Amino acid sequence: MRVVRSVEHLREALEYMRRGGHTPIGFVPTMGFLHEGHASLLRRAGEMSNTVVMSIFVNPLQFGPGEDFESYPRDERRDLELAEREGVDIVFIPTVEEMYPQPIRSKVSVASLTTQLCGASRPGHFDGVTTVVSKLFNMVQPDYAFFGLKDAQQVAVLRRMVSDLNMNVEIVPCPIVREGDGLALSSRNVYLSEEERTQALVLSRSLRTAREALEEGKARTAADIRELLVSVISSSPLAVIEYAEILTFPDLEVLETDDLLTNVDGEIIMALAVKFGRTRLIDNNVFTPKEVATLV
Amino acid sequence: MRVVRSVEHLREALEYMRRGGHTPIGFVPTMGFLHEGHASLLRRAGEMSNTVVMSIFVNPLQFGPGEDFESYPRDERRDLELAEREGVDIVFIPTVEEMYPQPIRSKVSVASLTTQLCGASRPGHFDGVTTVVSKLFNMVQPDYAFFGLKDAQQVAVLRRMVSDLNMNVEIVPCPIVREGDGLALSSRNVYLSEEERTQALVLSRSLRTAREALEEGKARTAADIRELLVSVISSSPLAVIEYAEILTFPDLEVLETDDLLTNVDGEIIMALAVKFGRTRLIDNNVFTPKEVATLV
Repeated sequence: MRVVRSVEHLREALEYMRRGGHTPIGFVPTMGFLHEGHASLLRRAGEMSNTVVMSIFVNPLQFGPGEDFESYPRDERRDLELAEREGVDIVFIPTVEEMYPQPIRSKVSVASLTTQLCGASRPGHFDGVTTVVSKLFNMVQPDYAFFGLKDAQQVAVLRRMVSDLNMNVEIVPCPIVREGDGLALSSRNVYLSEEERTQALVLSRSLRTAREALEEGKARTAADIRELLVSVISSSPLAVIEYAEILTFPDLEVLETDDLLTNVDGEIIMALAVKFGRTRLIDNNVFTPKEVATLV
Repeated sequence: MRVVRSVEHLREALEYMRRGGHTPIGFVPTMGFLHEGHASLLRRAGEMSNTVVMSIFVNPLQFGPGEDFESYPRDERRDLELAEREGVDIVFIPTVEEMYPQPIRSKVSVASLTTQLCGASRPGHFDGVTTVVSKLFNMVQPDYAFFGLKDAQQVAVLRRMVSDLNMNVEIVPCPIVREGDGLALSSRNVYLSEEERTQALVLSRSLRTAREALEEGKARTAADIRELLVSVISSSPLAVIEYAEILTFPDLEVLETDDLLTNVDGEIIMALAVKFGRTRLIDNNVFTPKEVATLV
């Protein structure tokens, strides 16, 4: 495994792999503090690619004022051990100075998919994501790039960016990885107190409850689902709901209150953002209503 | 010479050239209606590259409402003859539908370099340029891309985009090509009446006059230069000045009225946009004041 910290060395390392015929190239961009969710992305990358590149970069551009850029957890040594174990070929760990040697004036943005959900509560966040991912894509020039579906809106936004701008990379979305008790893995879970950690289970529980109600025909409309999600999450006294939404996926169009979900073609997402103390957690479930409700 | 009209065929044709080792790849994006200025770009591309790709696409995204998108001159047959003569290997001529198969939600933009000069009078124009050029770069993946310095602001904007976003291409700026009497070549020159064509010579004449005054020490400040440019252009009764500016290049920072130009390090641009009837012409001169004024 080769660890590189400059764009120049990254390009050299990639050139070496390409010349050796070790293609296709799979890329897993991360902010580090890796967990089993990242490991699953790396394994998928390993299955599909002959060179696996992982980046570790906490990107200041995608954090708003008052967000946790400074305190975002970092542990390079542990990250490198995990990367080595998962068979990563090249790890790219740039400094902020290496990524932004001059004040960045250029921006890549995706309209309309970025105004709801996390885009509404974190203005500018997705512009930061699409801009840094564009830079990383241009540096790595991967054939595949792997992203976890926990950030489902990010996946939707990046897929649109790639298709709108004819980028030569396929975005491969990978399933959410959960703890045994249902909590979706996140680097930010370390912020949670024991009490918050326990109560945070309402996120996955509310999604399961809504899904079951749909399967059993007890919930039929967008309003039914929203109500169920909110009622389960509200059973936690510590939970402060930022949003509990149901939208089409990947176009993220809002469903009207009375829309019968079984009338919707294609996929739907139930998406949550909930704060426990100062920690903001997200979770979601993507499904096809026509399939889920066929048994009714 | 191969003419392709779909992104898929373009990628196939390029793949064939790459497999044959015909690299580096040089790219000349155009809006067609080619003239000797384009021919000079193609020749430069031929000197530096083993495969020359030219695109012809009148990009609706970079035209504002009321601008000349519909009436922009087109002559594919003549363009193909010129391309063949100049040794182009691949000509890409997509339809609007091929370039924008779905409503485009993604945008590449460059801040602050795009607010002055043509950016001020054509809001959104440069976003259209940077977005379509990003798409074309992703399709062609050239090693070099050639742009004429008549659109000097475009060159400055694209260079910043490439460096900010780590695109794998070198922007090669090429000198302005002029008619014998000084008129800068432009596809839009065909719009000019005979009378307008004659009066349009004030653009290049004003730049020459300002340059000479600088060399002879008769003009020393930004205000001196602006005054000279405006006075020469105003000698044409048909000329309506949109801007006559002097700025640093390529950062396009406005020079204060009393700034002594010989105190400025690096390059400076005198830039003009002038309307004759409904036809808008631009011209400019880029120079290093410390070199120009050394004789004084």
